[in-house]
Amino acid sequence: MTALHHALPLVITMGDPAGIGPEIILKAFAHAPELLKACLVAGDVDTMHKQATALGLPLSVLSIDSAAQAASVELGVVPVLQTGESHPVVLGQVSAQAGRMAADAVTWAAQAALRGEVGAVVTAPLHKKALSLAGIEHPGHTEILQALAAAHLGLPVQALPVRMMLTSPGLSTVLVSIHISLRQAIDAVTQAQVLETLQITHRSWQQLHGRAPRMVVAGLNPHAGEDGLFGSEEINEIAPAIAQAQQLGMQVSGPYPPDTVFMDAHSPQGQATTDVVIAMYHDQGLIPVKYLGLAHGVNQTLGLPFVRTSPDHGTAFDIAGQGVADPSSLMAAIKVARGERLNQRLS
Amino acid sequence: MTALHHALPLVITMGDPAGIGPEIILKAFAHAPELLKACLVAGDVDTMHKQATALGLPLSVLSIDSAAQAASVELGVVPVLQTGESHPVVLGQVSAQAGRMAADAVTWAAQAALRGEVGAVVTAPLHKKALSLAGIEHPGHTEILQALAAAHLGLPVQALPVRMMLTSPGLSTVLVSIHISLRQAIDAVTQAQVLETLQITHRSWQQLHGRAPRMVVAGLNPHAGEDGLFGSEEINEIAPAIAQAQQLGMQVSGPYPPDTVFMDAHSPQGQATTDVVIAMYHDQGLIPVKYLGLAHGVNQTLGLPFVRTSPDHGTAFDIAGQGVADPSSLMAAIKVARGERLNQRLS
Repeated sequence: MTALHHALPLVITMGDPAGIGPEIILKAFAHAPELLKACLVAGDVDTMHKQATALGLPLSVLSIDSAAQAASVELGVVPVLQTGESHPVVLGQVSAQAGRMAADAVTWAAQAALRGEVGAVVTAPLHKKALSLAGIEHPGHTEILQALAAAHLGLPVQALPVRMMLTSPGLSTVLVSIHISLRQAIDAVTQAQVLETLQITHRSWQQLHGRAPRMVVAGLNPHAGEDGLFGSEEINEIAPAIAQAQQLGMQVSGPYPPDTVFMDAHSPQGQATTDVVIAMYHDQGLIPVKYLGLAHGVNQTLGLPFVRTSPDHGTAFDIAGQGVADPSSLMAAIKVARGERLNQRLS
Repeated sequence: MTALHHALPLVITMGDPAGIGPEIILKAFAHAPELLKACLVAGDVDTMHKQATALGLPLSVLSIDSAAQAASVELGVVPVLQTGESHPVVLGQVSAQAGRMAADAVTWAAQAALRGEVGAVVTAPLHKKALSLAGIEHPGHTEILQALAAAHLGLPVQALPVRMMLTSPGLSTVLVSIHISLRQAIDAVTQAQVLETLQITHRSWQQLHGRAPRMVVAGLNPHAGEDGLFGSEEINEIAPAIAQAQQLGMQVSGPYPPDTVFMDAHSPQGQATTDVVIAMYHDQGLIPVKYLGLAHGVNQTLGLPFVRTSPDHGTAFDIAGQGVADPSSLMAAIKVARGERLNQRLS
């Protein structure tokens, strides 16, 4: 996948058409034409056309019917592939039709990636309630993508564990667990889960960057337990998982005190000696990532058989159609999906 | 205490004489003479004199025998009060004699504060092993100060609960618990402990700044539990404590999602609408504080009957006597003890 996926087009899903997805995609095409080369939009041609007109951007929307066509469009042309039925939607309003259109785009993009027609999938935000109104059983992107990938591979979904990686300029963080209580998150810090997190991270990084990641692992307890004085998970679970990963040839060390490991690993100037910090729970990883600036945060799902990134924000229905949405995070998501480094400021 | 304590001298304890304490104190007197006005050093006259000579600083050490004398010394004079027996110590070496000298300084400073002779105590770092070698039963500053204050007030130590506050430029954080495992820290998030934390913070801030603090409270779980979906401590413990505190007249709100509350509260430019974030456990508070820069971190013990701050670093035996120790954090600790605001950069 390493060399191949960079040469293939990159697909951006439209997101919920009533949210800011179409707007930030169009702004990205207008503001960063070089970055958006060989990108196509999966979604609704009519929605993209209307929004381009409303925003008054110097862009034309071109209806295409295969991903390959995206490679040869001229600058200023936004290639859009129609992924389902088209319906007019009211900006800022939750609706089943908008949810269905968003889901159709995601389904097409995942299947195109699984067929090897696109090199990476970048997803604009969808709305969970609209998705549910449309009768989609999965609560969000990750679950839809996991299910499609597992079906494609003929595996049960449990055989395709995924992890969330958050990337800000100078720091990438992978979380052992996400949306569970802190008490359950402690229970999830097992040797098996920490090792699985390291393996998924190692494999995904290798695929995207063509080299092994240099990983460091945070402890769970204050001062990483201070030799068992404040908790034993470092000794019983985390250190053994790190030792196993080292035996498997991974570049990994730890566990380190949680309150300094992120700061030590963060390298805004590019002289990084660490690529990824493995965080033991949601807030341990999210607090430092969010401190580095929300606008440039990128969410990446590791463990899928294709590259998938997304901006670190939602549909923002409250500002949809106002022309004020910021495409920075989407542009950062495209950069990360292409295996490029995030700078402190994106142009 | 509010008005009075500002007019009284401020005592700086020497710290372990084999560490960087004497050096950073002398450098603070040399670099920030205005800030160090009406400050005295509790410790060993001979140690301070030798170090001033070794550092070649334009200072003279003056032996005084009461705190009040500190108010009238000239610029460039470091008033030192001899607090115990004097012994020569080897820089960078752990010893019982150095531990005893450090403890004598702390004991004198606490008692001077309890007698109302000084307005605040700033403690330079001591070495826990040296303290133990000297036969001191308490593991550190906080426990020594707590015991002396409780004895002075005729109370059992448990009747004098304390909390740690960490202050960096633009953010102060108070922790519900510190050096216990994350599992125990979750158990410590009770309505009573959260309320006690709010009460101690409210009272201490009021004493130091002459006004009530504007406090916000972090949740424990991801997204502050998302209405009970990821944990119930917000609903069962934290929210009721906040409601009680509000009924008692405190300015407090929350619980807020832990991954954004610190960033939202942080106000480097001085337009703060929040004074203090209450963190539910060690790393939740320490990760954002350390991100803001170790050099300017100040540690403050709330709940004692006097103001006590300290720099957020240790004795640094490895660099003692080399003249390279940085007095920034000590200077910040003096500022905070005087009720002043920390700037992004100290001069």
